[in-house]
Amino acid sequence: MGFRSFLHRLTAPAPKGTSPNGPCKMICVVNHELKMGKGKVAAQVGHAAVMATMNAGSHTPFLLDYWLSTGQKKVCVKGTDAEHLLALEQMAKQAGIQTTLVHDAGHTQIPSGSLTVLALGPDADDRLESITGELKLL
Amino acid sequence: MGFRSFLHRLTAPAPKGTSPNGPCKMICVVNHELKMGKGKVAAQVGHAAVMATMNAGSHTPFLLDYWLSTGQKKVCVKGTDAEHLLALEQMAKQAGIQTTLVHDAGHTQIPSGSLTVLALGPDADDRLESITGELKLL
Repeated sequence: MGFRSFLHRLTAPAPKGTSPNGPCKMICVVNHELKMGKGKVAAQVGHAAVMATMNAGSHTPFLLDYWLSTGQKKVCVKGTDAEHLLALEQMAKQAGIQTTLVHDAGHTQIPSGSLTVLALGPDADDRLESITGELKLL
Repeated sequence: MGFRSFLHRLTAPAPKGTSPNGPCKMICVVNHELKMGKGKVAAQVGHAAVMATMNAGSHTPFLLDYWLSTGQKKVCVKGTDAEHLLALEQMAKQAGIQTTLVHDAGHTQIPSGSLTVLALGPDADDRLESITGELKLL
C-alpha cells in the first residue's frame, strides 16, 4: 500500500467486507506499578499509538483503515504490573489480536527498559472486551 | 514512499543531508484549562502523535524518518487554554514547523469539539525550544 494512498484512505469509507461488524478501538494498558506522572504516561501512550498504528499498517491494514476512518478511538486502562501486561499480551495473541509493547528508554522518572504500555488492536470492541473488559479506566 | 519501505526505514540510518543537526522531538502542548484526567490526556496525546506522524509522512518524510530512527522522542507540556494553543500554532507555522491540532470527539469528560492538544514537529530540538521552551512539563 502506498503511503499517500494510506493517508488518503483516512477520509475514505472502510473497504467493504473487510471491516469488523460494529465499533472498533485501540486499548492502551498502562503499567500502574510504575507510578508515572501525567506527562510521562501521555508520552508512553503516544509511543504505543504510533507503534501500533505502524504495526497495523504492516499486518492488518483493513483494520487500520476502519479504525482511522471511524475516529481512531483509544481507551487507556490500568494494568497491575509488567507481569500482568505480559499475561494480557499472551491472551490477546491467542485471540489473534495485534499486540504492541512499549519499553521506556529511561530518560526520565523510571528505570531504563521498563515495560510501560501494552497496546491491543486496533480491533473490534467486543473482541477487545473479552481481554480487557474487567480493567479499570486510567 | 511505499508504506513497507516507510516501516523498514524505522531501523535504518536517517538519509544523509536531510536530517536536522542534533536531536529532534515532537512536542505535545496539552490544553490545561480542560482539566482532563490522566487517561483522557493520554488518549488525546495518542491521537496527536498518530495524526502528526501521518502529517509528517506526507509533508516532511525526512524529518519523520530521522525522528523515528532516533527513538521518536515526545515531550508533553502545559498550554494555558485554547487561545494559547492557537497562538503557539501561529508562531510555529511562521517558523516552518509542522503543526497538528486535535479536537475532542466529545464522548467523555469535555464538550465536543474542544481543542485538546497541539502537536509540534517532529523537528529539531532547538527550533522547537524557540516556541515552547518556556512552557512547563505536564
